[in-house]
Amino acid sequence: MAYVASLELLRRLREGDAWALGRLISRAEAGVAEARPALAEVYRSAGSAHVIGLTGVPGSGKSTLVAKLTAALRARGEKVGIVAIDPSSPYSGGAILGDRIRMSELAEDPGVFIRSMATRGATGGMARAALDAVDVLDVAGFRTILLETVGVGQDEVEVAHASDTTVVVSAPGLGDEIQAIKAGVLEIADIHVVSKCDRDDALRTLTDLKQMLTLGTLVGPKREWAIPVVGVSSYSGQGIDTLLERITAHRDALAASELGSQRRRRVAQFRLEKTAQTLLLERFAAGARGFAPALAASLVDRATDPYAAAGRLIAQTLHEEFSDELA
Amino acid sequence: MAYVASLELLRRLREGDAWALGRLISRAEAGVAEARPALAEVYRSAGSAHVIGLTGVPGSGKSTLVAKLTAALRARGEKVGIVAIDPSSPYSGGAILGDRIRMSELAEDPGVFIRSMATRGATGGMARAALDAVDVLDVAGFRTILLETVGVGQDEVEVAHASDTTVVVSAPGLGDEIQAIKAGVLEIADIHVVSKCDRDDALRTLTDLKQMLTLGTLVGPKREWAIPVVGVSSYSGQGIDTLLERITAHRDALAASELGSQRRRRVAQFRLEKTAQTLLLERFAAGARGFAPALAASLVDRATDPYAAAGRLIAQTLHEEFSDELA
Repeated sequence: MAYVASLELLRRLREGDAWALGRLISRAEAGVAEARPALAEVYRSAGSAHVIGLTGVPGSGKSTLVAKLTAALRARGEKVGIVAIDPSSPYSGGAILGDRIRMSELAEDPGVFIRSMATRGATGGMARAALDAVDVLDVAGFRTILLETVGVGQDEVEVAHASDTTVVVSAPGLGDEIQAIKAGVLEIADIHVVSKCDRDDALRTLTDLKQMLTLGTLVGPKREWAIPVVGVSSYSGQGIDTLLERITAHRDALAASELGSQRRRRVAQFRLEKTAQTLLLERFAAGARGFAPALAASLVDRATDPYAAAGRLIAQTLHEEFSDELA
Repeated sequence: MAYVASLELLRRLREGDAWALGRLISRAEAGVAEARPALAEVYRSAGSAHVIGLTGVPGSGKSTLVAKLTAALRARGEKVGIVAIDPSSPYSGGAILGDRIRMSELAEDPGVFIRSMATRGATGGMARAALDAVDVLDVAGFRTILLETVGVGQDEVEVAHASDTTVVVSAPGLGDEIQAIKAGVLEIADIHVVSKCDRDDALRTLTDLKQMLTLGTLVGPKREWAIPVVGVSSYSGQGIDTLLERITAHRDALAASELGSQRRRRVAQFRLEKTAQTLLLERFAAGARGFAPALAASLVDRATDPYAAAGRLIAQTLHEEFSDELA
């Protein structure tokens, strides 16, 4: 099959072509330069969807929650797009096995589009790729988009926060070793979810979170939005409707107050930074390739040090690669 | 107390001052510019220690293994430095609580120095900081340095691989969700460890790994070094001595073949890249601060797109911040 240009894919996407949707997201993920004009247009057309970031440590049950939320949204007739940046996500070995296995219950539904993305790749590139993919889904008419990331690693947490509404999932009874990773994740929540609420020890986790919010250990209730803690059980279905109500309430709070525009500014700033970092490091890496081996060899001999060598690498590479910018 | 210049800290470090050691590592971690000449000198003096990278997913038991290895090395009279980049590490809440709680059994031993580092921070900065800290320990006379990172996230895995000998720890009976994260981690091992070998299901994990190595699913035995799989039990102490023997054998294999110089070149190249990325992004972020808000505002309005805005941000920032490099 002949290569279909990305701008042509975009045209087909607007006509509802699911194949074009998948292809364009793949090009966003790969970061191919040819796709950039199309993705730039996608960005200008996007902004209608409500983007829900979900994060939590491995074992927190967030992937099962995503499946339950999706089923509940589908029951209301909404199309749901899912971008999962989680190598442990059960939807797909995409990130791991180079193969995509969708959740069986949602796989056949044309109103659901699931894409798993690898976390590995160029610095900052994952955030750029994920947010481009969200926009492609937006332009394809998905009005609710779930952006799931594993809550380990700074990039992953930041991406979940680059959404309209951020949901942080905690589970009862995870070992301290895993639970502790969450520090730094809890503070980004607009809504806290405690999963596995059919278990006896869930009440403790619920109480702990509510107390942290009350005492102000976590960023506490603001005037415009009091952060709720919702218990859910993916097993019994308990709490899923309440969670959807809270998500809708947060969306309404964004629209009705300064929160919404503050949020959009923060996300835009994050996106600008990540895209600039990606483009800068991409060109830098390309330009540095010629100079790096000789400098690395002097490092091996300890004839120089990493700071001096890096300084020279930057000067040489900028001179070679970015002279147009400096003209 | 007056500020002690970093070069003065280095002088005291060489005299065996433990306080200076801790301070200099803190400055390496913080990435303060004042410390760079000292850290550059540190690099030139370092290179004597054997650096052992240890990684594994949360719950794999790698932190307990580090404690057992350290105790065994101490019994042989060796000084042991530990740099742990793992927010779930039990040594310390340093990364989490802003406080340091050493493992009680090793805390009082002057022949052991443990430092936990946060994983959050500037892009690429964690790798640079960790490897600078390793060098400081090297110059302080620690001949064995354990560099422990959580095996989740590209940076963390890469740092564990920026060592002389990389040990990847797998545990039996972890859920598939957590276990799957390991893909991409297994392939960096010079030595595989299966922890918790007092458990019945450990044999399965041992067999799986050996089979992957035999079948070549994992990077298989090379002429210079056949990757061993060692079962350990931190509970019974089983396997710890065997693991130390394997580590010594790998060190000898590095010294006796091309493996060692290949390894040093790869680590130097990684270090050069990470240091250059850190310095470049640091200056870029500083220079971009003035231009970013206006560009982010146009992004919010969708009057521009992230690629065009990032391109302008790069051009403006390079022109402002890096004009000396381009003169």
